[in-house]
Amino acid sequence: MSKTVIFQQRVEFGDCDPARIVWFPNFFRWIDAASRHFFVECGVPPWHETEKLHGIIGTPLVDTHARFIKTASYGDTLLIATSIPEWRGKSFVQRHRVTRAGGDGAEDLIMECDEVRIFAARREGDVPGIRAVAAPDAIRRLCA
Amino acid sequence: MSKTVIFQQRVEFGDCDPARIVWFPNFFRWIDAASRHFFVECGVPPWHETEKLHGIIGTPLVDTHARFIKTASYGDTLLIATSIPEWRGKSFVQRHRVTRAGGDGAEDLIMECDEVRIFAARREGDVPGIRAVAAPDAIRRLCA
Amino acid sequence: MSKTVIFQQRVEFGDCDPARIVWFPNFFRWIDAASRHFFVECGVPPWHETEKLHGIIGTPLVDTHARFIKTASYGDTLLIATSIPEWRGKSFVQRHRVTRAGGDGAEDLIMECDEVRIFAARREGDVPGIRAVAAPDAIRRLCA
Amino acid sequence: MSKTVIFQQRVEFGDCDPARIVWFPNFFRWIDAASRHFFVECGVPPWHETEKLHGIIGTPLVDTHARFIKTASYGDTLLIATSIPEWRGKSFVQRHRVTRAGGDGAEDLIMECDEVRIFAARREGDVPGIRAVAAPDAIRRLCA
Repeated sequence: MSKTVIFQQRVEFGDCDPARIVWFPNFFRWIDAASRHFFVECGVPPWHETEKLHGIIGTPLVDTHARFIKTASYGDTLLIATSIPEWRGKSFVQRHRVTRAGGDGAEDLIMECDEVRIFAARREGDVPGIRAVAAPDAIRRLCA
Repeated sequence: MSKTVIFQQRVEFGDCDPARIVWFPNFFRWIDAASRHFFVECGVPPWHETEKLHGIIGTPLVDTHARFIKTASYGDTLLIATSIPEWRGKSFVQRHRVTRAGGDGAEDLIMECDEVRIFAARREGDVPGIRAVAAPDAIRRLCA
Repeated sequence: MSKTVIFQQRVEFGDCDPARIVWFPNFFRWIDAASRHFFVECGVPPWHETEKLHGIIGTPLVDTHARFIKTASYGDTLLIATSIPEWRGKSFVQRHRVTRAGGDGAEDLIMECDEVRIFAARREGDVPGIRAVAAPDAIRRLCA
Repeated sequence: MSKTVIFQQRVEFGDCDPARIVWFPNFFRWIDAASRHFFVECGVPPWHETEKLHGIIGTPLVDTHARFIKTASYGDTLLIATSIPEWRGKSFVQRHRVTRAGGDGAEDLIMECDEVRIFAARREGDVPGIRAVAAPDAIRRLCA
């Protein structure tokens, strides 16, 4: 079993659309925060420190696949369970399962998402850009 | 060939993150707008009118799969090419290809995304919610 | 002294812009949540319940005045202290003071904001819209 | 009369909240884009170029005062008329008037906003931060 970290997120009025449910891009805002929170809870320093240590400025997405199962609305509190089930050279799979807090015991799954992310460093030169680098062992050990 | 509609989107300073590139949840905001824009350009009325005609309040996502190929930053103008390559009973696949305007001719692909969406109507009762309904023929003909 | 409620908000990577500081519209997202949270903590029910009880669907802004004193960045936790220093017929002033948690004791003020808000009910008719109504006594007593 | 530049913005479904009107923080997203667009239209280069020329990385807000007059909803196109009515040493007032395109001739004012902004340069040192600098004459002449 890989390490799993829980990120808690309230749903606010302004997160919902005229259909009165969470507007889906907001799930990706929260998942991005959960992704970062995972590393923090595992003991990885903030990106402005890892930039100095390893040149790493973040873990941008290269691929994401999400399934939306139930709707959520304001007043709900969501729990995002995040883990890294797979490491692949310069990329890794990060999995997020979003459930409703206080749901009916076993399962109140809202959505789930498998991301492929890389560890990114700045690319030199005039054009703003990034490049993938191998996960530093020190970081990988913290997240296992 | 299915009908393809282009949606144009400027990238603003505030759409970018400390890595100076578009923060990825913003792509989903724009793709959601492109999805709606596709229907408008095909002649489908706004949702507050389709709600009266067909009970349909929107086309929420049930599944999305996105690949991020190149980064974009502020100053860029993006073109989102949207089509519906596949209809499936109560759902359909909507495809979005995001390129940079003024790119190097053939290809400057930023990201691409295949969505599965449904036509949604309000679910009766106390709890805010939605249910899938079959695509009305009138709408489907407009989008083919 | 009027009742003061504290709302806590983490600052995430994606809340920051290429200058590496919070992109200011995000402060307004959080203040809107703090505004709602104030009513919840005072015992006012969620808007979908107040709509049934009083016809009230929310407390939209009619005027806001914000001063930005210090910057904040990701990794910070913000505390938003919210109160209602003034009631005015169909409107009220809601004040928000945003400080950095763990700041240097007395003061680490990031920004402050005075809002004028109304209690809003839906306006009848075809055009989506709202109208101001007097603050119900029951709600006003809970917030004093 | 100071120079006035118009910025056009569609209102999308996802910009609206469960009250079916624009969620107000979105106005500040658009006004920030209109603020930047004003400088671009006046001939000021993008911030990543001005950073090299003048050290300037943007024009962050220090004070904003907005009045909300009418609501807007999805399907609307907004016009933001931006000007700089006042220059003050290291700061300036930027004014934004938001009207609905295709409105009833003279006036269909949605909201208006007076901002005080500074020209900002990076502050040296470990902590991410900014400092105000005087408006370079070259920039000021372009905007008059």
